[in-house]
Amino acid sequence: MQSVMLGIDIGGTNTAYGFVGEDGILLSDGQIPTLAGEGPEQLLERLTTLTVKGRDKLAAEVNLIGVGIGAPNGNYYTGNIENPPNLGWPTVPFARMMSKKLNLPVAITNDANATAIGEKYFGAARDMENFVVITLGTGLGSGIYVNNELVYGEDGFAGELGHTCVQVKGRDCACGNQGCLETYVSATGLKRTVFELLSRRTGKSTLREVSFNNLSGQQIAEFALAGDIIAREAFQITGEYLGVALANAAAFSRPEAFILFGGMVAAGELIVNPTYMAMERHLLGVYRGKINILTSALPGSSAAVLGAAALAWNEAKNKEKF
Amino acid sequence: MQSVMLGIDIGGTNTAYGFVGEDGILLSDGQIPTLAGEGPEQLLERLTTLTVKGRDKLAAEVNLIGVGIGAPNGNYYTGNIENPPNLGWPTVPFARMMSKKLNLPVAITNDANATAIGEKYFGAARDMENFVVITLGTGLGSGIYVNNELVYGEDGFAGELGHTCVQVKGRDCACGNQGCLETYVSATGLKRTVFELLSRRTGKSTLREVSFNNLSGQQIAEFALAGDIIAREAFQITGEYLGVALANAAAFSRPEAFILFGGMVAAGELIVNPTYMAMERHLLGVYRGKINILTSALPGSSAAVLGAAALAWNEAKNKEKF
Repeated sequence: MQSVMLGIDIGGTNTAYGFVGEDGILLSDGQIPTLAGEGPEQLLERLTTLTVKGRDKLAAEVNLIGVGIGAPNGNYYTGNIENPPNLGWPTVPFARMMSKKLNLPVAITNDANATAIGEKYFGAARDMENFVVITLGTGLGSGIYVNNELVYGEDGFAGELGHTCVQVKGRDCACGNQGCLETYVSATGLKRTVFELLSRRTGKSTLREVSFNNLSGQQIAEFALAGDIIAREAFQITGEYLGVALANAAAFSRPEAFILFGGMVAAGELIVNPTYMAMERHLLGVYRGKINILTSALPGSSAAVLGAAALAWNEAKNKEKF
Repeated sequence: MQSVMLGIDIGGTNTAYGFVGEDGILLSDGQIPTLAGEGPEQLLERLTTLTVKGRDKLAAEVNLIGVGIGAPNGNYYTGNIENPPNLGWPTVPFARMMSKKLNLPVAITNDANATAIGEKYFGAARDMENFVVITLGTGLGSGIYVNNELVYGEDGFAGELGHTCVQVKGRDCACGNQGCLETYVSATGLKRTVFELLSRRTGKSTLREVSFNNLSGQQIAEFALAGDIIAREAFQITGEYLGVALANAAAFSRPEAFILFGGMVAAGELIVNPTYMAMERHLLGVYRGKINILTSALPGSSAAVLGAAALAWNEAKNKEKF
């Protein structure tokens, strides 16, 4: 009988789950609306029902031995989801609550950290001991491996490269600071750059027809691929900011590679090329030509669930009691 | 009989050495001119002679079991001193050469890393698992602990925060880049800020009497303490740059504390206060009020030697063969 972990990815809108073997094969998966407004207990209840159902269905073939959760502000040390801004909850001891319900060990971390563990177990970082995963979505998240271990820091909240300052007195950030990396490098940052360029440039662009609220990162990528000059410049600028940030991160931990993950990565060379060039230009001489920029090797649709399951597999490997 | 390590700090001008017990007590120490121009073999020869002499003198009381070296571009992984710019040497396998001469295990790293290990064993970081040491001298060095281990990265050259970019298209750096932290935060950076202020401000200042080449960081500190308004503003600006850089480093590894080391630290509150205020202002909300800025607890005159010896003690603790 095969052992499996349940991976759960709690998002602002949807929560995805899946049973994952040690080989990274997804045996069964699904998705439910998070309905954050109804509170954490309600989500827990529905997840528990699904887990029991899923386990019973697979029971003849598998043995469910633990649960890994990726959640906004998920804290690995405490097992809490701490004041998640996009769920509107207070701090909730979610891992403990779920562990009690299922009588199984449950580990939790934030989504970017879960993705990094996913890349380590099942993705592009299998053979790496030092690497940094950058997740590009509405914001910018990061998960960092140093000496073959994920960096949680003193209180579980390390790895927030989205909130490093890349422009003194730069763009306002939702965190209250100015010039944070994610105000430039993320789907939202890309959109802000488009609007800055629409104000500075005079050239024609289909982007002049679209309102701020109606514009998505996906659209900007499509416009850029179709040759829109503003969209292309926006990707160029985004890549330059990201490249400087990666050069700075390299000076910290000298990783073997950076791994880019998320919707924006679909733009391929449009984002990777300017990023690599800016990184190389800003790297200290001894690092030049030695650090790769890779794109995620996890299947986009199930990456978050695989990452959450990888967290649980990592616990099982490193802790006796998990 | 007490076991001791020999700690050696190779500098551009002088090389200091000392025999250090596991308790951090310096039993005997001294200093010789590095005379880098005569080559590494010559320095090795003189160091070997001194070591044998020192050991024989202490022989009745102690047992010398290993050597730790802090050197510019010292690479822990390879044992080499790699193209040290201020010594003018090519890459030299110094650890191996010395080990052969003395028939003792020899470890090497750069001076900032050695200082960080020194703080961990004998200084301000004894009980910390996550901290960052910033060394402020002619340049800015750093030594980083994550999960109770020093961060060497993929090739031994991690922890170069002096070369993170804090100002896009900022000051020229000796490394070839622009806007590197050490062009603002270091004795040289402080001096450059003084000269920028002399060009921008109109107020009286004793600093208007001193040439660039004649001005030292020490002097600027003395002028600032005596109330010179340009010198005080220069410290303020230096602290603000450092504070932003520390906030950025915090987003990477969420350390318990930053530990400042070096001549500039003698300026005390003049540098620490603006640094702390800027760091707090730029920290992500979840980190605020939780990260200390401390000054080194190593005795300034022998800190480098203690750090180098701590490197050797750390090897003895973690490796069987050392």
